[in-house]
Amino acid sequence: MTKGALALLINSNAQNWSPERWKARFDAVCGDRLVTLLPNAGLDPASVHYAAVWKPVPGTLAGFPNLRAIFNLGAGVDALMADRTLPDVPLVRVAVPDLTGRMTEYVVLHVLMHHRQELYLRQSQRDKIWEPTYQWPASAVTVGIMGLGTLGIDAAGALKRIGFRVVGWSRSARTVDGVECLHGDAGLDAFLGQSDILVCLLPLTPETHGILNRGVFAKLNRNGPLGAPVLINAGRGGLQNEADILTCLDDGTLGAASLDVFVQEPLPADSRFWSHPKVVLTPHNAADTDADEISKYVAAQIACFEAGSALENVVDRARGY
Amino acid sequence: MTKGALALLINSNAQNWSPERWKARFDAVCGDRLVTLLPNAGLDPASVHYAAVWKPVPGTLAGFPNLRAIFNLGAGVDALMADRTLPDVPLVRVAVPDLTGRMTEYVVLHVLMHHRQELYLRQSQRDKIWEPTYQWPASAVTVGIMGLGTLGIDAAGALKRIGFRVVGWSRSARTVDGVECLHGDAGLDAFLGQSDILVCLLPLTPETHGILNRGVFAKLNRNGPLGAPVLINAGRGGLQNEADILTCLDDGTLGAASLDVFVQEPLPADSRFWSHPKVVLTPHNAADTDADEISKYVAAQIACFEAGSALENVVDRARGY
Ligand SMILES: NC(=O)c1ccc[n+]([C@@H]2O[C@H](COP(=O)([O-])OP(=O)(O)OC[C@H]3O[C@@H](n4cnc5c(N)ncnc54)[C@H](OP(=O)(O)O)[C@@H]3O)[C@@H](O)[C@H]2O)c1
Ligand SMILES: NC(=O)c1ccc[n+]([C@@H]2O[C@H](COP(=O)([O-])OP(=O)(O)OC[C@H]3O[C@@H](n4cnc5c(N)ncnc54)[C@H](OP(=O)(O)O)[C@@H]3O)[C@@H](O)[C@H]2O)c1
Repeated sequence: MTKGALALLINSNAQNWSPERWKARFDAVCGDRLVTLLPNAGLDPASVHYAAVWKPVPGTLAGFPNLRAIFNLGAGVDALMADRTLPDVPLVRVAVPDLTGRMTEYVVLHVLMHHRQELYLRQSQRDKIWEPTYQWPASAVTVGIMGLGTLGIDAAGALKRIGFRVVGWSRSARTVDGVECLHGDAGLDAFLGQSDILVCLLPLTPETHGILNRGVFAKLNRNGPLGAPVLINAGRGGLQNEADILTCLDDGTLGAASLDVFVQEPLPADSRFWSHPKVVLTPHNAADTDADEISKYVAAQIACFEAGSALENVVDRARGY
Repeated sequence: MTKGALALLINSNAQNWSPERWKARFDAVCGDRLVTLLPNAGLDPASVHYAAVWKPVPGTLAGFPNLRAIFNLGAGVDALMADRTLPDVPLVRVAVPDLTGRMTEYVVLHVLMHHRQELYLRQSQRDKIWEPTYQWPASAVTVGIMGLGTLGIDAAGALKRIGFRVVGWSRSARTVDGVECLHGDAGLDAFLGQSDILVCLLPLTPETHGILNRGVFAKLNRNGPLGAPVLINAGRGGLQNEADILTCLDDGTLGAASLDVFVQEPLPADSRFWSHPKVVLTPHNAADTDADEISKYVAAQIACFEAGSALENVVDRARGY
């Protein structure tokens, strides 16, 4: 009996994704299973048991009658969940140390950039001004992390190692060593009121859509060592109200922002974010998904699944993440 | 019997040091001991038992016949050691968690900035170009730390937590958990050959003067993921050959540099470092000495010393650190 095929479905508009590179990596780890890149006119849809996908065109996955599981080739499944015809089989998201470590690098870098006055120091360098100003130690600064999942917990640990105080916020109650954890609507204000730097690592769901707005920014700690609070968003663009971010940066409600994600990507050339002096912008590369690591992760999960074990990191469709 | 006085001697040219703030902090922790700011014409030099100093004018300390110990208000004693008339009493340097933590913040920030392509990403933002390029994980990058003392060991630990591979180099043999340690002249080439990012946390001594030169830069790893190697110097300006750094940045021997210290500080306005596109410059503020923390540290050491215990972190004058 031949093994069911693995169909690879990578949106051709997705930046920096080479479908051929992914196919080569999957071929290397899938043994004698057929790995095929879609579209593939000669493929019998009934032969496909697994799909590994990144932002597939809605409706495509409904065409495979014997699909057993869908693997999303990234941590966020918001793009997939928008497909109303998505087959009702387990949907697995990525949670691998490689990706988690990359996000922690991004979070630590951007927290330190704002904490250590990088915007001021780069401007001073351009102006040839040698004027160190008072620098607080990390222990005087509280970082608030929205989302205490795979990514948020790891970032919290690295920030604590550097000396920051960390508070966290999630949907359900969480316990994280050395982190004051709050949750739900009831815990939100107390969480925000302590946060000097707000780091958003939430998934995009109907509940979290637009959560980064003026009402939230206005509740951040204004009496901290940095003066005006700082926003760092590496979750998804849909989490943020971009007009609110700009007006809050302009009127001082926010002191600065690091943004990796945007409502529209690539960010349009006429966006004010590009040239705003208080914005540190990155092109959605906080945590790349590495083809080597992720193909191994998917192949290992399929092997366990076919041996009768449960799949890991299955998305709860009701929650949306 | 009244206690011997503590004389505070802070060079008025030292940037950002408020002698009055230091006196207030020392007054708060020295109980009934007289704390006096120099110069003080009414002071009996024989009454002074301790001196806490930052870059005092050479010769000044020789004027106190009953001096028992000198406390340097920073980690580096190179400025003091240049004073040929320095009394032969124990010379204590600063080693406190507050200062160590600040240096680790600086090192982690600057390693991550270069690792995560910050120079490229800021230029892309200015040019409104959305073009993420391949980003290696920290695990693919080796950071070489010159100086495995109080500061180097702590920075190594934080870098390892973020995933970097770390190698270290010191004068004598050292063992640091998870760090490949090399030492002395015999270990230097093997250390440099592995280093993608070179972090210098050495003290300035006759042996280390000018050690950051073309010969050393040329031995750094050129086959690493970052391409050309990166220099980060937060030790002392005298460790670096500044002409060599500039020519090596220009000819590609070095890919970039973060410099916190310079041969002449403040850095002269006509220095090419200010406007060099590959230089990230900070005004010697990698690790400030905090008056609160250091005054407590000195007062506690004096109390132990008078109770008969040995002083900690005494400089070995023959080694020069
Ligand atoms: N920029 C990038 O390059 C990049 C890369 C990878 C991932 N991401 C983004 O990062 C997100 C998080 O990834 P992850 O692996 O950490 O996800 P995860 O493990 O599922 O964790 C999600 C966290 O968010 C919390 N949460 C979800 N809905 C919430 C709500 N309504 N209110 C409060 N908290 C809520 C969850 O609470 P509970 O703990 O109660 O479940 C959980 O703590 C992904 O969804 C993706 O959008 C971005
Ligand atoms: N930029 C700033 O804001 C700032 C702030 C604080 C300190 N600093 C600088 O940082 C320096 C280091 O501070 P620290 O507290 O870590 O000093 P430390 O504890 O005395 O450590 C010095 C390290 O350098 C090594 N070393 C000394 N001479 C050497 C040589 N000739 N060859 C190889 N290795 C040598 C020592 O080797 P052994 O282990 O064999 O002794 C030791 O590992 C200070 O001296 C100061 O100049 C800068």
